[in-house]
Amino acid sequence: MAVYTDISEEELGAFLRGYDVGELLSYKGIAEGTENSNYLLHTSTASFILTLYERRVEREDLPFFLGLMEHLAGKGVSCPLPVHRRDGAMIGELAGRPAALITFLEGMWMRRPTAQHCREVGKALAELHNAAADFPLTRRNALAPRDWATLWEACRDRADEVEPGLAREVEAGLEEVLAGWPSHLPFGVIHADLFPDNVFFLGGKVSGLIDFYFACNDLLAYDVATCLNAWCFEKDISYNLTKGTALLAGYQSVRPLDPAEIEFLPLLARGSALRFMLTRLHDWLLIPDGPMIEKRDPMEYIRRVRFHRQIAAPTEYGIEPA
Amino acid sequence: MAVYTDISEEELGAFLRGYDVGELLSYKGIAEGTENSNYLLHTSTASFILTLYERRVEREDLPFFLGLMEHLAGKGVSCPLPVHRRDGAMIGELAGRPAALITFLEGMWMRRPTAQHCREVGKALAELHNAAADFPLTRRNALAPRDWATLWEACRDRADEVEPGLAREVEAGLEEVLAGWPSHLPFGVIHADLFPDNVFFLGGKVSGLIDFYFACNDLLAYDVATCLNAWCFEKDISYNLTKGTALLAGYQSVRPLDPAEIEFLPLLARGSALRFMLTRLHDWLLIPDGPMIEKRDPMEYIRRVRFHRQIAAPTEYGIEPA
Repeated sequence: MAVYTDISEEELGAFLRGYDVGELLSYKGIAEGTENSNYLLHTSTASFILTLYERRVEREDLPFFLGLMEHLAGKGVSCPLPVHRRDGAMIGELAGRPAALITFLEGMWMRRPTAQHCREVGKALAELHNAAADFPLTRRNALAPRDWATLWEACRDRADEVEPGLAREVEAGLEEVLAGWPSHLPFGVIHADLFPDNVFFLGGKVSGLIDFYFACNDLLAYDVATCLNAWCFEKDISYNLTKGTALLAGYQSVRPLDPAEIEFLPLLARGSALRFMLTRLHDWLLIPDGPMIEKRDPMEYIRRVRFHRQIAAPTEYGIEPA
Repeated sequence: MAVYTDISEEELGAFLRGYDVGELLSYKGIAEGTENSNYLLHTSTASFILTLYERRVEREDLPFFLGLMEHLAGKGVSCPLPVHRRDGAMIGELAGRPAALITFLEGMWMRRPTAQHCREVGKALAELHNAAADFPLTRRNALAPRDWATLWEACRDRADEVEPGLAREVEAGLEEVLAGWPSHLPFGVIHADLFPDNVFFLGGKVSGLIDFYFACNDLLAYDVATCLNAWCFEKDISYNLTKGTALLAGYQSVRPLDPAEIEFLPLLARGSALRFMLTRLHDWLLIPDGPMIEKRDPMEYIRRVRFHRQIAAPTEYGIEPA
């Protein structure tokens, strides 16, 4: 949660004169998103989110992210619609940073999602996968298995500070997961970060999917596996079978998984848990503490990795045979 | 800037059922205010600010703060109006904290105020002083001169870490200011923290005064002196005479200062600068760094103290003789 870049009314006013969005009435920095600075704007016509892209987001990736949102919104997926500038562009510049204006979506993210929320997010994820199938741009996953080694190199020597023996455990886990990683499963555009804070609900239904800044082309079932990690574990890191069953059933009600996707689910879930563990471990050990830094405990994901390692069959996730 | 307390949709929903404000559509933690957690809410009827009162705000002071806003709004001052609960109360409880809902004011605070903004804020301050004259509750200033000693005790021994010689300089300054402090000037309700981020503008006019959580009964001219410190110095801590002249003229166009208030302005301004220097110095030296902590440089206020010490006559602030 952060606003890294403060902006003045003059520079925001000048930026907005490039758009047809009415008069600026207010703007508030919002404490959401960990990578970019976000403002909630009220204008005389509507509410908008203004995003200033900070570190970690590559400028050349923005046409993919914003184009994807526009593509998905055009197909009826509830996601923010990037507002075009008067000159047609979707990306402007503000305070020396690339910046975009997107429509504001009402709705609340669920701090304590229920099984019903999990079912709805499963459906929404499958709808996203289907709607994105003909999106013409591509972006490789910058945090795909082959990139994990770089993260791991940077923190291996200090991993045992987090828990003695962790370095050896992760090393062995990475080796196993990479050796077994599938390449022949259905491939397409994935959200890659569909955590509860990126899904808004209104009246029990999904009202918005947000934060497409990790979206990329990768295995569709890997996105499902990430949602299992993000939605179906309790605070004590126990797997909630009811939620898992609901999420998978919701997904399959729109896009049935094929037998190979189901077979690889435990490995994909383990890999996904490793990926989030590695970015957390990296930040935990290597990012200096500071007023804008909120670190998340890598152990929460180590414990998910351990859970997935001991899965004997995909049915343990609650999946109904295809 | 911070959101100290996260709240779930369930608990917020339950809290809002105590109010007649329509259906909750969204809530976002906003990165404004340094003492409390603030959320911007959209409901089916309007926008609101929800404040959860954290550390530093005393629960027994809330009726004063909220009652003052209601009193001022009733007199036409543009400030948030606390929303009453169905049971009539203005204060509820949420996430174990006192919480209040206030109306949302459109407008932007000026990162770079002009002389015209200073004139408008001067007028608005005088209007606030006039409108509050018959407010029946009172609150003593918890950061009045007699309280500065406590802050100073806590950081005196380490003041020289900020600048060698600072301890001796502050010690002498405090002594002089306290010895000369006036007691016979017009007294009433003051805002006590009317910095640029607490004043919203729309179309060059004040559209809202916010953050009444330092408001108290004290010398009215002390509030004017604080505004000089807050609005009329440039980034290099040079005094901008044009802005000072505008602020004082704006104030006097509504409430002329009496000759004694003008005479004491340099001492009040020096005292006000000391007060903000002391709270900054205290936090700078004694609050541990952490993810929610954003410290402000005490030297910016030491340099204001030095400016005010060398003032020979109040006319140097740009004040026109009464």
